[in-house]
Order: sequence, then structure tokens, then C-alpha cells
Amino acid sequence: VAPVTRRRKHWGWGFTDEQPSEAALRGSAAAFAAVLGFGETEPEAAVPLERCTLPAPRLHPPAVLRDCCDGSDHARARHAYGSSYRDVVRGFRGRFDNPPDVVAKPRAEAELERVLEWAIGSGAAVIPYGGGTSVVGGVEPIVDRARFEGVVTIDLCRLDRVLEVDEVSQTARIEAGASGPSLEYQLREHRLTLRHYPQSYTQATLGGMIATRAAGHYATRLTHIDELVQSVRAITPAGAWRSLAAPASGAGVSPDRMLLGSEGTLGLITEAWVRVRPRPSFAAETAVRFPDFLSGAAGMREIVQSGLGPTQCRLLDPGEARLTGAGDGSSAVLMLGFESWAHNVKARLALALECCAGHGGVSDPVESRARKDADSEVGRWRESFIRAPYLRDLLVAMGVIAETFETATTWQRFASLHRSVSEATSAAIDAVCGVGLLSCRITHVYPDGPALYWTVLAPGTRGGELAQWDAIKRAAADAVIAGGAPITHHHAVGRDHRPWYDRERPDPFAAALRAAKAAVDPSGALNPGVLIDPA
Amino acid sequence: VAPVTRRRKHWGWGFTDEQPSEAALRGSAAAFAAVLGFGETEPEAAVPLERCTLPAPRLHPPAVLRDCCDGSDHARARHAYGSSYRDVVRGFRGRFDNPPDVVAKPRAEAELERVLEWAIGSGAAVIPYGGGTSVVGGVEPIVDRARFEGVVTIDLCRLDRVLEVDEVSQTARIEAGASGPSLEYQLREHRLTLRHYPQSYTQATLGGMIATRAAGHYATRLTHIDELVQSVRAITPAGAWRSLAAPASGAGVSPDRMLLGSEGTLGLITEAWVRVRPRPSFAAETAVRFPDFLSGAAGMREIVQSGLGPTQCRLLDPGEARLTGAGDGSSAVLMLGFESWAHNVKARLALALECCAGHGGVSDPVESRARKDADSEVGRWRESFIRAPYLRDLLVAMGVIAETFETATTWQRFASLHRSVSEATSAAIDAVCGVGLLSCRITHVYPDGPALYWTVLAPGTRGGELAQWDAIKRAAADAVIAGGAPITHHHAVGRDHRPWYDRERPDPFAAALRAAKAAVDPSGALNPGVLIDPA
Repeated sequence: VAPVTRRRKHWGWGFTDEQPSEAALRGSAAAFAAVLGFGETEPEAAVPLERCTLPAPRLHPPAVLRDCCDGSDHARARHAYGSSYRDVVRGFRGRFDNPPDVVAKPRAEAELERVLEWAIGSGAAVIPYGGGTSVVGGVEPIVDRARFEGVVTIDLCRLDRVLEVDEVSQTARIEAGASGPSLEYQLREHRLTLRHYPQSYTQATLGGMIATRAAGHYATRLTHIDELVQSVRAITPAGAWRSLAAPASGAGVSPDRMLLGSEGTLGLITEAWVRVRPRPSFAAETAVRFPDFLSGAAGMREIVQSGLGPTQCRLLDPGEARLTGAGDGSSAVLMLGFESWAHNVKARLALALECCAGHGGVSDPVESRARKDADSEVGRWRESFIRAPYLRDLLVAMGVIAETFETATTWQRFASLHRSVSEATSAAIDAVCGVGLLSCRITHVYPDGPALYWTVLAPGTRGGELAQWDAIKRAAADAVIAGGAPITHHHAVGRDHRPWYDRERPDPFAAALRAAKAAVDPSGALNPGVLIDPA
Repeated sequence: VAPVTRRRKHWGWGFTDEQPSEAALRGSAAAFAAVLGFGETEPEAAVPLERCTLPAPRLHPPAVLRDCCDGSDHARARHAYGSSYRDVVRGFRGRFDNPPDVVAKPRAEAELERVLEWAIGSGAAVIPYGGGTSVVGGVEPIVDRARFEGVVTIDLCRLDRVLEVDEVSQTARIEAGASGPSLEYQLREHRLTLRHYPQSYTQATLGGMIATRAAGHYATRLTHIDELVQSVRAITPAGAWRSLAAPASGAGVSPDRMLLGSEGTLGLITEAWVRVRPRPSFAAETAVRFPDFLSGAAGMREIVQSGLGPTQCRLLDPGEARLTGAGDGSSAVLMLGFESWAHNVKARLALALECCAGHGGVSDPVESRARKDADSEVGRWRESFIRAPYLRDLLVAMGVIAETFETATTWQRFASLHRSVSEATSAAIDAVCGVGLLSCRITHVYPDGPALYWTVLAPGTRGGELAQWDAIKRAAADAVIAGGAPITHHHAVGRDHRPWYDRERPDPFAAALRAAKAAVDPSGALNPGVLIDPA
């Protein structure tokens, strides 16, 4: 676990001590530019924090809360953005137009309640903040200045303990501010694991995952954190909202399912009972090469509809396979793996490979997890997956537009949606950047369809790259919605996806959600602008 | 499928043509009384409908709706109750104090909208009605007479078609009024099945299952209908509420999950896209005998936590095994089975049997489904399961109190909850009936805990049996809540569970749900008294 004294970079991913040296950056930039065919080999430097000018804070916490509040430039800059490409570029360039006025880091739920009471009493908006890994503007303090006196960001990072472990029921009560590595570290002494690894895993917190319905490690069955949550506790302005900790209930609408995906608009999630499991002792995985993306998808469909339930089942198109080192660009590559703590899983992998063979899938020899990760295609891909957010900081310094977007659709509509979204996005890349790369992977699969995830890499024009990206994103998102698919499979809505989300969600549901919010948050202080506008 | 001309019994389960002759009833009564040790062998006769007096209807539909509305005594009596023991006793005795004033059976969604508009415009309450199988007062027209001019029950039975089948994505769009057998019949030509068999399967409708979060066939993973629903369409007074049909979405709070469990309070569910699958071609099942209920539960826990995911995994305590013919009363019996349309499942059953053996479980020879059902313990239990609602009508005629209640808890709390609830219920049975039988089964299992289901059988006092049952139920439900468990795992809340539900659900959530309802149903017309009271 990262000791609390490590300092997060004020503009990008990870910690300040992880930032490579200038020489190392230059070397990496040259290497990447060669692979991409674009990108400046002389990386730009981030504007140091001391050269950034932040607007003066409009709010000042009372003495009793001063211990848990931080008005420093670093804290305010660090909490001004999430982790999207737009966020990194703005932070990199030293643009901090809307930082929170105060960052509070309560040390206990009671202190959190006092901060919330003070903030609302002061007419402030309140932004719940977990790991700051939102890529959709979910934590950005853009609020109506006529309506709110300022913004208090409540960072849950100090509520980071595993409070209780029920080894018999394989559940744990965990505070919402625990990051992925921190909660895994604490579970390890019980030989248990949550095993939920979104790409943001190293920074993301349990509360943030729940608030945004994060999708993680499991390509099937346990994909969204929703399935791992047994009960949730949240603090709302109207009091504590805590559901019964039971494996299941049929008592009315699920209170937990109303908090899952609420994105901080209904309350601040403070803890949850989650389902954990022993660490896997059996694993079998391999990479399967298909002639193309569509035949690979057909193989995946057969696997998931047959009920096999692989843990890993991700398909990279040829371009994505090349970029991540999982292939040479001549074929689509399926990362396929099963794991279990109780039983050998080789027979299940063999059945899955039979499904693939019928669609032209040719597999590498089956690997056990003991084999050194980096030696294999699966290992190279996994390493690349975890490093991607770090890499993005370098790409920004190289002037490269680097961002992703995602959705899900039925198997029936998959091929046409893949084509229409890819074409619209490529056309936009060509129009605004001249050249660029668009690749796609299937990240998670369901019996009724796949989740699709596109990566955009293109040379940006210094100072104009945000407008360029906005144009690409608009084309992509319009095509997603036109294809009848949701604006996000696991990146959430935040502020950035609002224009498309507003078109896809049913009106009576929006009215119901708006009313529900007003009932528990009468002043509309909680994360205004996210998901819904106040009544 | 039952032809639409068949007439439902006005007071009990199934159709009039299924009601046994008096001689047959007498024979069955003698046989059951011998098994139970109580119950009158001379069964009482139900009060015929023509001898029942119903209050005069207070509402009269306009001419344009008369075709789809029914004000007959049979229709009104038939829709006066659900299917709980309390309901059957009252119907049997000819007590129809609160029938709906009008029963509407719209033939299309547009007609349903017209009925809804007329009913709300007339100041009526509206009760959405599927199969009438609620056992919690979910469709009983008890409404505030000072607030509503009458009650219109909208029966969805004519919206019973499978509208669309997507064989590639293995999904189907089905109207809400389709009963279990009807939708299965329509899916059969596509060689697909929903495979969701709650005990009410023969009468229950898809819309009712969704509104009440029904639990069905699958003992693991796909237990609740929630997991089989891809998207839902409902008509609310504020318009149509339809979610995107996608395999998954991370776009905010799930609109479907707000309709699932809404019990008719937010809108009338008219159709849904559901996940279907090919009919299973591989099955392996057996019965496993354990020395006692707790050791059987330990075996189940090991099975489900190991990730095996059996389709059938139900544990009967010795008394329940005896009563259902699945055992001789000397041991607990686990019904254990796997099924698949794609792969042989014998290896998985073998692994599950290893889990059982470690806890003293001894299995019968493994059966394939081809073996004639009635020859086996599993078959005898399955037959008994499906016949139970029919049997209940006979037990009522024998003056026997016959009802069930259920909940779910963690594995950690399972043994103590099982003991405390069983003791409290047994004490109440002894106090009000002198003798009686209480048995328990585990109906569904999760990695974090089981769902428990108790059956009460006791000799009632003619005319006093409802008060007797109410006392038993109160003791049982108080013990369930005192043990920190939800008031229901799959029977829903309705009107009957309100006193306990109101204690278990979080207050801010109740406020949110009340406000959500008011936003889409401003007059509070939809199923008033269910789940929440109007603001």
C-alpha cells in the first residue's frame, strides 16, 4: 500500500515519485512516436504547480473543521479534475479555473456529517471524491455560481479501513475511501480478495466504484461492482441510508440499486458490505488468435452463451493487439482465462477453446499463472493495461490525443454498431487531425451482448487538442446513441456525458430520480449537474 | 397453454375444471389427515359464488371502455384477493368485502392507457394485476375510501404475447401478461426457454414476476427475475418508462432496477426484453441425505462458495422431506442438480458431491433427466412442489392452517436465525393451535448466505383460523426482523408485510421512493398502501 505521505501528481496519474525523469521521458517518447507514426519526440513539460494561479477560495471552514480541511493549492488543484484526457491536458497546462474552495478529508463518518452540515449551511455545493479517477467530469467543480456560494470537495481517502471480515459468509465491511490496493492489502491477512480491478484500480476507491457502477476484472458474471455489493451505507442530508446486510431480498425496490450509479447525487457512500472470496489457486489462460474481430466476437458469444463464465475474456482488434504488444497486428487476439480457488479449471478452458476453434480461433499453449507474466502475450497485455493511465501522461506531453470511450450492445446489433461507430469516429479523426489510430476491444461479455471499448490516438495541435478531442467525442457519442446503445457501459455519466444521457434515459424515470434526489438533498448541494439537473 | 375460455376458481388455485370431485376430496383429506395427525376428514365446501354478496360497484366505465371492462361478480370476486392462505380462506368462506369496482382487461397498451386515464380521472385507485398469485396482499383492493372513489383493477392477461425473439442475442420481448406456461409455449418454437419457475409458475405472469422480484427455478446465480431482465417498459400516469435494451449499462442509477420490486406503485409494466436460453440437453441430478439440516447447509455453502453454480440446490429439513415424499423424516435431503444446453454437467455434479461428502452427505445414484420423474426422490419432490398450491385449497377445506414465510440471511447468522425464528414460530403454533408442524427448507443459495423458507401446518378453529394464523405470522415475522433479516426474500411486501418492511428499510430511501412515486403518479392512484404510504 502507498503510505499516506506519498503525494499525488497535481495534474496526472499516480504519485509524484512515479514521474519519470526527463531523459527517460524523451527515450519513451521516441519509442512511442516510432510505433504510432506521430507524436512529438521532444515532450512538453507540465506547468509546475507554483506557476499556476488558482482563484481565491470563497469559503473558509470553521475552526472546529480546520484540522480535516485543506485549502492548499496542491489539494485544490489535485481535486479540480478527474482523470480524463481533457482533465490531464488542462492540469498539464496549468489551467485550474474551477478548483474546489475547500478540500475536506474527514477522519470519521461523524466528522463527514459535520463537514456536510457546514457546507450545506454555507450554501456550498458538495462534491464527493474517491480516487479522482472519473473520466466523465464526475468530480469537476463546475457548479452554478449564482446558486452556490462555493464548492467543498469531500475526499473520503481517510476512511480507508476494512472494518469487519465475515470469513464464513465471505463478506467484508469496508470503508468507502479504501483504494483497490489498500483494501486488497487489508483483506490479504484473511486470505481473501475482492478481485475487482478496473483500469483505475491503483487509485480508485470502493465508494467511487459503487457510485459509478464500475466494471472490473471479471469479464463475465461478476463484471460490475453491483454484483459484489451486499449492502451500502451512505450519508445523505436527510440522514443515514443503510440497507440490510443480507445475501438477497425481495422487499420492494432495492435501496442499494438506487445508490449504485447515483454518482454522488443522493449521498456520500461511507461504507459497504461486499462479497469477497479466497484468492484463486487454480488458473488457466491463453491467447487465441482469430482472423478478424468479428470472428473473434462470434467465438466469445459461443463461450458466454454456453454458460462457461470465464474470468478473462477480452478481444483486441488487430490494431489494439499490436499497440499493446499482445499481437503483431495481423489478427484479433482473445485473452481467455479461467480461475478458481476450489477446482482445476483446465477442462473449462478446453471447452472454451472448442468454442473458439469453430470460428477460426487458434490458441497459444495453455499457461498456468506461475509462468512469468511478462513472457506471454497475456502477460504483456496485462502489464500494458495497468500501465495505460501512466502512459497517457506521456502521450499528453507528446501532444498526442489519447482517450477511450465505450458502450454495450446486443450480439444482434454488435457488427453494425461496431461499424457505424468506428466509421463515424475515424471520419472525425481524419477531419480534425488528418491522421490517427482507432482501435477497439471487447472488454466484458454477457449472454446477450458485448461491451465495446474504443481507443483513440491522434496527433493534436498544441492548444487546440481539446477542441479536436471534443469533435471526435461528439461524433463517436452521437453514433453510439444513434445505434441504440447506452452512452456508457462502465465510465458513468458525470457532467461530460449529460447531453447523450439526457437523450437515452426515460423521461418518467428522470422525473422520479429528480424527485428522489430532492427528497434526500433538498438544497440540491450534492454533485450538482451530474446525472440530473435540480428541479 | 390454457385456453382463455377456462375459468379460474373464484376462491382458490387454478381453474374450475381442476377442482376435484367431493369424493376425491374426501379420499385425499383422509390420507392427508393421517400423515399430518390433524385436519378434518370431512372437508368443508366452499361458498358458491352465487351465494356470495358483493358490495355494489361504485364506478361504471364509459361506453368506449365497456368492451374491455368486466363488472361481473366472478370477475370482481376473482380479483378481490391474491393467493395467500388468508386470501383463500376468505374466498372459500364467501367473504368479499373489498372487491374492485371494475376489472379491466385491456387488449393493447393504448387501451390500457385509456383505462388508466379514465380511472385516475374518476378518482379511482388502480391495482395492476398479473396472475393474482400475490401472497402478501399485493393486489387486494383495500384503499382509503375517503381518498378514492373506487378501485379499478387492471388485469394484464390479454397482453400475453411473445412479440419478438432475438435468437442471436438470446433475448425475447414479451408482454407482461403472459403467464409462465404461455410464454414458454410461445418460446418453444424457437427452441428457447425463460426457465423461470416460481411455485406460482402456472398462473404467475412475467409482469407480476418483475414487479415483485420473483425468484424461480435457479437455486444459484439467476435466482431472481432481476437477472433475466434486459429492459422493462411500463406505463405511468406521467408517460411511458422504457429503458434501453442493452446487455448492461453504467449510465447512472438503473431505470430497470427501480421498476423491479416496485409492486405496481410506479407504473403498469407492459412488456420486457428478457434473457432466454436454449432448452437444456444435459442434466444430472440426485438427492443427498445429510444427518441434519445444519450439516446439509454446510455442504450447500461449500458448493456455492466454490463457484459451481448448480441449477437445483434445495435443502429440506427432515420434516419437510417426509411431508413432500422426498425422504422418510430421518435425514435432511438436498435436491442437487446441474443442467446445460452446451456441455455435459456430470463432472460438476461430482465436484458438488465431494463438497457434500465432507459434511456427511450421502447421495443416491446420479440420475439423468430421462428417468421417469415420479420414480425418484427428486421427482417426487418436484411434483409435490408444483401441486402445493392446489393442495392448499384442500387443506383449507380440512380446516388446516397452511402457509409459508421466508427470508434470507448470511451463512454466519444462518444457524442462529434458523433457531430463533423456528422457536418463536413453534411457540406461537403451540399457543394458538395446541399442535402443528413447522418445517423449513433452503430454497436458494448465494455465496454469502441462504434463503430460508418455512411451512406451517396446524389445525385451525373454524372461523378463528385467520386470527390464529395472524398470531403465528406476527411471531415469525418479528423474529425474522429481530434477527436482522429482510421480511421477504421473494414473496414481496404488498400490504401484509408493511409493518415489518417499514421497520427494515432506510428512512431516506423511503423518502426518496415516496417522492419518486409522487413524481410519476401525482394522484397516488397506483396500488396505494403497497410498499409506501403517499406523501
